[in-house]
Amino acid sequence: MKIKLISHTPDPERLVAMSARLCYSPVGAEDLVDTMSEAQVESLLNKIVEMEHLSTFEHVSFTFAIEGISRVLTHQLVRHRIASYSQQSQRYVSEHEFEYIMPPTIGANSLAKEKFEQLMNIIRSTYDELITIGINKEDARYCLANATETKIVVTMNARTLLHFFQLRCCVRAQWEIRRLAELMLAEVKKVAPLLFKKAGPTCVTNNYCGEGSLTCGRLAAMQASVKT
Amino acid sequence: MKIKLISHTPDPERLVAMSARLCYSPVGAEDLVDTMSEAQVESLLNKIVEMEHLSTFEHVSFTFAIEGISRVLTHQLVRHRIASYSQQSQRYVSEHEFEYIMPPTIGANSLAKEKFEQLMNIIRSTYDELITIGINKEDARYCLANATETKIVVTMNARTLLHFFQLRCCVRAQWEIRRLAELMLAEVKKVAPLLFKKAGPTCVTNNYCGEGSLTCGRLAAMQASVKT
Amino acid sequence: MKIKLISHTPDPERLVAMSARLCYSPVGAEDLVDTMSEAQVESLLNKIVEMEHLSTFEHVSFTFAIEGISRVLTHQLVRHRIASYSQQSQRYVSEHEFEYIMPPTIGANSLAKEKFEQLMNIIRSTYDELITIGINKEDARYCLANATETKIVVTMNARTLLHFFQLRCCVRAQWEIRRLAELMLAEVKKVAPLLFKKAGPTCVTNNYCGEGSLTCGRLAAMQASVKT
Amino acid sequence: MKIKLISHTPDPERLVAMSARLCYSPVGAEDLVDTMSEAQVESLLNKIVEMEHLSTFEHVSFTFAIEGISRVLTHQLVRHRIASYSQQSQRYVSEHEFEYIMPPTIGANSLAKEKFEQLMNIIRSTYDELITIGINKEDARYCLANATETKIVVTMNARTLLHFFQLRCCVRAQWEIRRLAELMLAEVKKVAPLLFKKAGPTCVTNNYCGEGSLTCGRLAAMQASVKT
Repeated sequence: MKIKLISHTPDPERLVAMSARLCYSPVGAEDLVDTMSEAQVESLLNKIVEMEHLSTFEHVSFTFAIEGISRVLTHQLVRHRIASYSQQSQRYVSEHEFEYIMPPTIGANSLAKEKFEQLMNIIRSTYDELITIGINKEDARYCLANATETKIVVTMNARTLLHFFQLRCCVRAQWEIRRLAELMLAEVKKVAPLLFKKAGPTCVTNNYCGEGSLTCGRLAAMQASVKT
Repeated sequence: MKIKLISHTPDPERLVAMSARLCYSPVGAEDLVDTMSEAQVESLLNKIVEMEHLSTFEHVSFTFAIEGISRVLTHQLVRHRIASYSQQSQRYVSEHEFEYIMPPTIGANSLAKEKFEQLMNIIRSTYDELITIGINKEDARYCLANATETKIVVTMNARTLLHFFQLRCCVRAQWEIRRLAELMLAEVKKVAPLLFKKAGPTCVTNNYCGEGSLTCGRLAAMQASVKT
Repeated sequence: MKIKLISHTPDPERLVAMSARLCYSPVGAEDLVDTMSEAQVESLLNKIVEMEHLSTFEHVSFTFAIEGISRVLTHQLVRHRIASYSQQSQRYVSEHEFEYIMPPTIGANSLAKEKFEQLMNIIRSTYDELITIGINKEDARYCLANATETKIVVTMNARTLLHFFQLRCCVRAQWEIRRLAELMLAEVKKVAPLLFKKAGPTCVTNNYCGEGSLTCGRLAAMQASVKT
Repeated sequence: MKIKLISHTPDPERLVAMSARLCYSPVGAEDLVDTMSEAQVESLLNKIVEMEHLSTFEHVSFTFAIEGISRVLTHQLVRHRIASYSQQSQRYVSEHEFEYIMPPTIGANSLAKEKFEQLMNIIRSTYDELITIGINKEDARYCLANATETKIVVTMNARTLLHFFQLRCCVRAQWEIRRLAELMLAEVKKVAPLLFKKAGPTCVTNNYCGEGSLTCGRLAAMQASVKT
């Protein structure tokens, strides 16, 4: 899995702070832009994060180029609807000699690994044979596996990202999308540490489990560690 | 492919007409509900469709249960973001002896068909073996094909549906999602014929090709047939 | 303020339960529709509410006709973006002898009330004069007050409604939209009590204050009452 | 009316082109970023605009600080739901000595102008009196006019902007929001001329009137001028 933050709104923390300031202060557009010190930005941001005044977070967005992920992951990913996607198309791009993603549980078991790799090779041959027979790419791809590697450009604003991290950094998310979420979080923290300082699953951010059952033990462990 | 319109806003055409009437007339909520004749509803709807005042179409929504479709289709389908989806999960539901969708171009070629069916059988065995080895369902599914049958419940409002039909009834859409779009359109026309009387690709509805290139020939053919 | 639930998805709780069931069980569309007992629906819904599996709530929507509210309220209301609105237009509908909404704090103070009513009368005359001079309605309305009565048709799905109730039933919301939210909640509880049994601000539903500061005292009071 | 483009995705045209390229070419994330010439960007963009492959336009967004506009305008503006807003709050910011927007039709008529200005002065006094009496700002504002000046920060992605320009640069839009749309269009054209070269109402961009009635005469005039 390789991700790259290829673009983002410049100076994202200042823009969020400016937007919040406009809501609550008698300032005009000019003043807004020119007159906030670093300290003011930071102090206002801390307040916004605390109050969960998240609409201001929407003004900044982040674009990632992602590769080395499976179609399992992207089928989950694109369910996040307040976001924009451009995915490499299996209708138009050949999957000859495609790469694939192997789940760690399969990689760790030699028999499972062998079966899996064998299958991927058979799929490669079948795909090539279908193409040779004259089946077009968009139909030949029906034989491709969920594991097939895909590439995607994703843009999310900071509010969507917070929601995404909340759901997908949770241990109940599948390993692949969780890994992606963790890598994305690491990237955005580099350019906007204040915006994302409270990002993560609700057990971490709000001491509360949205999944209801608590069976993962993470919240209990955290609460125990706080008490002792 | 099997689709069933399992629910929809009751009396959808009247609700759209009532909403439009509120925008432009000095009526109150009570009058709105009680006092429109069938003829008034129809005449107002015709005007709305003509004027493309589509925001009123959003008040009514339609829910479909769909099965016998591939994961190729659903990965395209869920890209329509102003809609709601509940899909059968490969994380939680076993794919032992899964069904699959075979593209017509493959089914029509005996060699391609044989290769494809052979592969599906190998995938079935591999999936079962992985499960037997102890791989959990969410990881074993990495070996499953795009062709694997899936089931989904979809809710769209009438405005989203118009947009969906515009893109997906177009001959440039892939055959499987186009078939789905045509079946869905047939269903909603039964319960709301006026709302969907102008539904379809823009060449049909607006005598104009949004795809830019016109290479499909459909628009040219229609224009020729109108002239003669 | 007068609200009327003029339409909703039929049998909403069953539809949500059916959608959730499809996600996790090996059932087809036919089975889905025909074979859930009332008890199964209830038990599954309780689980969904507990687990906050809210995407299934989106399949059902509710349409309200609302009147006797101010433009203050609707300017706040239409900021909820995952929803559909048809509002009586001041561009096309005359505001001659408009009604208006008076805040309770103004109504409770005789001097304030007098000033307010006097102003509304002056605005009425000015509006009529502008129209008489030949100013069109869309421009004459610039003189109208925020207090001017308006009418609106609103459709929200159950997930949006939960979010709306969370924000707008909170004591920090302004009195007018809070009153609206409470009336809407009462209406939907009549037709879908299980879906909305946990609806309200987070202090009520999750023992947690999203507003950060806790200064309203509601959460503290609830926690105290639980302890004793 | 004063607008300022206070932020936007850096190098927006290249980002759109890169995203489109990923969809249709066998390139990876690294290549994507590093290897497109200016000429390639331009040629690809022209194709995208022609084909209306607008999903790629969503990756870039633009943030405006706007002041000197009325609450009439913002009530229309915030109906565009795929966008983000931070508006100066009348609940928290005093409207003592507020500015206001006078429609040109009123300004051009001395009697209308006098009536309008008189009213604004009365409203100012009433507002101040209510505050003096002890009414809080959020309730005192019920007496304020639609004309009252407001300030707002708006973020829209390029696809939303195209839709916004389509509806709001149309002569059927009210003068104030049309003026805003024209100013915004002028701003974004400076930083992304290729993305917005076809922006405007459908009569201009597609030789087609979405308003149905053609009564404005703009399309007919354009068609006549093309023929001669």
